[in-house]
Amino acid sequence: MAIRLNCDMGESFGVWKMGNDEEIMPLIDMANLACGYHASDALTMNRTVSLAKKHNVTIGAHPSYQDLQGFGRRSILCSLEEIKSIILYQLGALSAFCKAHGTAVSYVKPHGALYHDMMRDENIFKAILNAISSYDKNIKLMILSGPKNEAYDYTSKLYSINLIYEVFADRNYNDDGSLVARSYENAVIQDELQVADRIKLIKERGYLYSTNSKKLFLKADSICVHGDNDKALEFIKLLRKALY
Amino acid sequence: MAIRLNCDMGESFGVWKMGNDEEIMPLIDMANLACGYHASDALTMNRTVSLAKKHNVTIGAHPSYQDLQGFGRRSILCSLEEIKSIILYQLGALSAFCKAHGTAVSYVKPHGALYHDMMRDENIFKAILNAISSYDKNIKLMILSGPKNEAYDYTSKLYSINLIYEVFADRNYNDDGSLVARSYENAVIQDELQVADRIKLIKERGYLYSTNSKKLFLKADSICVHGDNDKALEFIKLLRKALY
Amino acid sequence: MAIRLNCDMGESFGVWKMGNDEEIMPLIDMANLACGYHASDALTMNRTVSLAKKHNVTIGAHPSYQDLQGFGRRSILCSLEEIKSIILYQLGALSAFCKAHGTAVSYVKPHGALYHDMMRDENIFKAILNAISSYDKNIKLMILSGPKNEAYDYTSKLYSINLIYEVFADRNYNDDGSLVARSYENAVIQDELQVADRIKLIKERGYLYSTNSKKLFLKADSICVHGDNDKALEFIKLLRKALY
Amino acid sequence: MAIRLNCDMGESFGVWKMGNDEEIMPLIDMANLACGYHASDALTMNRTVSLAKKHNVTIGAHPSYQDLQGFGRRSILCSLEEIKSIILYQLGALSAFCKAHGTAVSYVKPHGALYHDMMRDENIFKAILNAISSYDKNIKLMILSGPKNEAYDYTSKLYSINLIYEVFADRNYNDDGSLVARSYENAVIQDELQVADRIKLIKERGYLYSTNSKKLFLKADSICVHGDNDKALEFIKLLRKALY
Repeated sequence: MAIRLNCDMGESFGVWKMGNDEEIMPLIDMANLACGYHASDALTMNRTVSLAKKHNVTIGAHPSYQDLQGFGRRSILCSLEEIKSIILYQLGALSAFCKAHGTAVSYVKPHGALYHDMMRDENIFKAILNAISSYDKNIKLMILSGPKNEAYDYTSKLYSINLIYEVFADRNYNDDGSLVARSYENAVIQDELQVADRIKLIKERGYLYSTNSKKLFLKADSICVHGDNDKALEFIKLLRKALY
Repeated sequence: MAIRLNCDMGESFGVWKMGNDEEIMPLIDMANLACGYHASDALTMNRTVSLAKKHNVTIGAHPSYQDLQGFGRRSILCSLEEIKSIILYQLGALSAFCKAHGTAVSYVKPHGALYHDMMRDENIFKAILNAISSYDKNIKLMILSGPKNEAYDYTSKLYSINLIYEVFADRNYNDDGSLVARSYENAVIQDELQVADRIKLIKERGYLYSTNSKKLFLKADSICVHGDNDKALEFIKLLRKALY
Repeated sequence: MAIRLNCDMGESFGVWKMGNDEEIMPLIDMANLACGYHASDALTMNRTVSLAKKHNVTIGAHPSYQDLQGFGRRSILCSLEEIKSIILYQLGALSAFCKAHGTAVSYVKPHGALYHDMMRDENIFKAILNAISSYDKNIKLMILSGPKNEAYDYTSKLYSINLIYEVFADRNYNDDGSLVARSYENAVIQDELQVADRIKLIKERGYLYSTNSKKLFLKADSICVHGDNDKALEFIKLLRKALY
Repeated sequence: MAIRLNCDMGESFGVWKMGNDEEIMPLIDMANLACGYHASDALTMNRTVSLAKKHNVTIGAHPSYQDLQGFGRRSILCSLEEIKSIILYQLGALSAFCKAHGTAVSYVKPHGALYHDMMRDENIFKAILNAISSYDKNIKLMILSGPKNEAYDYTSKLYSINLIYEVFADRNYNDDGSLVARSYENAVIQDELQVADRIKLIKERGYLYSTNSKKLFLKADSICVHGDNDKALEFIKLLRKALY
């Protein structure tokens, strides 16, 4: 199985532009599309789905807590029924644009604080699985690959949902396969060539090195890249070269 | 074909309640469900779809301009692509809840200012048809029955969409089949028995009388009733008796 | 000093009504007015200020986290600069209506989650004091009376802000003067006469009894009452009788 | 009296940036600051007021219809009481930040659709005057200079409000002093030197030429410049040179 690049897209809102979707879309494999809760709007979604379709990019829903002001980066206390409901709402909205353009949503990747809450709270993880499962069991859920992959896999099978495991190529990992927390200086790898080397390694050997040089065999269906900074375009081209 | 009662439902928002959905749902045939743009939210939609399903009520999407503050009663200038996009967004969102509850959206009835704009501007009518048609040609569009029914029917067939014609039982009509404008004193019929009589007449004979006592043969697939006032419950029961 | 009744008012939003402001306003001394972040809107604020003025009710700003969907009951992570900014924004907006009606904002009482966060996090308490102090040092801050009154008083003096201590008449207190948490069965006192008796006691003797019958001398500038339920009107009348 | 440059500022929202406030602020005389209805938020307002204060730029409120999605460019039907209320709300909110930074709002310039509606509908003009007048009669109102200046002046005096007349240097004018409508090809003057020449002319002679080369003596207290495009910085420097 090839490792595929995923990237957040369609994060403009009204007159405010974000990122460089036109140029980045042709370089990625999977586009996580904002659904109006942390970014995007109906018109932007229509155009971004059209752009993804044009470049044969797999479409994922990128649902969030309802927080345009905070770009979905702030956790908002919701009941589990509300979590399920906001996932269904956003998943359905994006699906409509996909259907209108003759394509479909292939996976869900929660955004920002909702992603973090899903990884730290099993009940939220289950509420999200429940939402997707009740909508369409062919839609996958993307989560962070790590030391508890098997437990996540076991739970998701109870909901008949398949998982996609993603790895962050530009983040350092601890010996146990968890991410080095952002509060540590070495959390993010700045050297682009080193990031490309890590991608190459995980593709060819199936592992990357922890900060203590321990080999970590991490399941990597997809690598997450970022499109919203100046150097993004060149960086993604570099990563593509390492992967293909 | 029976004439069916349709009613706006699911118009609460957050902590604010509107209407009496629990008691009215069992009395109506078709529920026009708000989709979060003028009223409702993800949680409310989930619960209202569940309630409609429980009572075997046909579900319609009730999309609107994006205007919680003004309850969708104010026209907001949108491009035709934006009109199409906001219809798709709301239709898709509601469809997700329906799918999760094992049912489906059967029709679209635009809300408030969007309904009025659709009836007065052919391009907006077409943008709405375009949205529905690109999503699912089995979904019907509900419009106001009137003197131009044939023209609307002709246009909708170009998009492979079927229309549902609704009549307002509590509104007076002019000789040409159009509604008496709300600026006139006799626009709304206050006498409930008279409203029930009109419904009975349109059901049994296929016509109602204009303010000049002219017989108006108006296509009436559905009658619109209102659920958000104190007397609504008794009134709807009265209308049901006239119809069935 | 008399003990005064304070009540949340002006919590309607758009077409959605909440509470019974017309009837309750004449019965209270201090109105905590929503500022558009958790409830209310510009038009509602204009009308509610006018109503308070008419009944000579002291006006307080009732600022909140920005969360109409959750009625400000959910904590939203904000930087201290952002806390200060959202207080200033809402305080200024309400002040404009007061100025236009020939009155002024006398105090600030944070709403919901922001109130709780202020009581548990000294930095948020200081950010709120900082906001008020930079705007107008004559405006007071209302907080929950409890075992740490002196510490709060000391801090607020550093910002040249005076505090108003409020007591919840319908809540039981622990021996240390803190509220019995809502998770306990006896958190809320349901017996209305008992609530009235407690108010009478605190007014005449300056104390109320903890759940262990310990006398608690709690500073009580104001008693918080609720206006958004069916029995509110009669209950507030009962409390007034106990107080005056 | 010198002619002063005014520019819309503080139009970022949440994570979305707009314009180049840091570099443009030192070059302008009057900053029209968004108040959260079409752009900006509490944090952005706090920072933009601080920036304006630092550069001794006169601060104006830039209130709008409530329409983040449409950037306030779409007219939204409001009652006159609602117009007055949304002006007061935004004016008060901005004033709070000004007061906290030791400065004050000097004028109001309505934004986008509200500006156009004010110029075409005398009742909206009066509702805005009414709002400002009830808040602070020292605050001026900025309007478009044109053939009916005297009538606007007469009306504003009834509310004890002074007007600031602004001219668009980059727009062509008809013989009667009105703007050439944007639907005409020659509505906007693209040649930057020609714009600078027009500014020089209006400053030194008090007139500019209509499209038919008629001299138009237009009261010009201020010239409106735009800061949200790539060439804005250089263009504003050019205009400053023409003015000073």
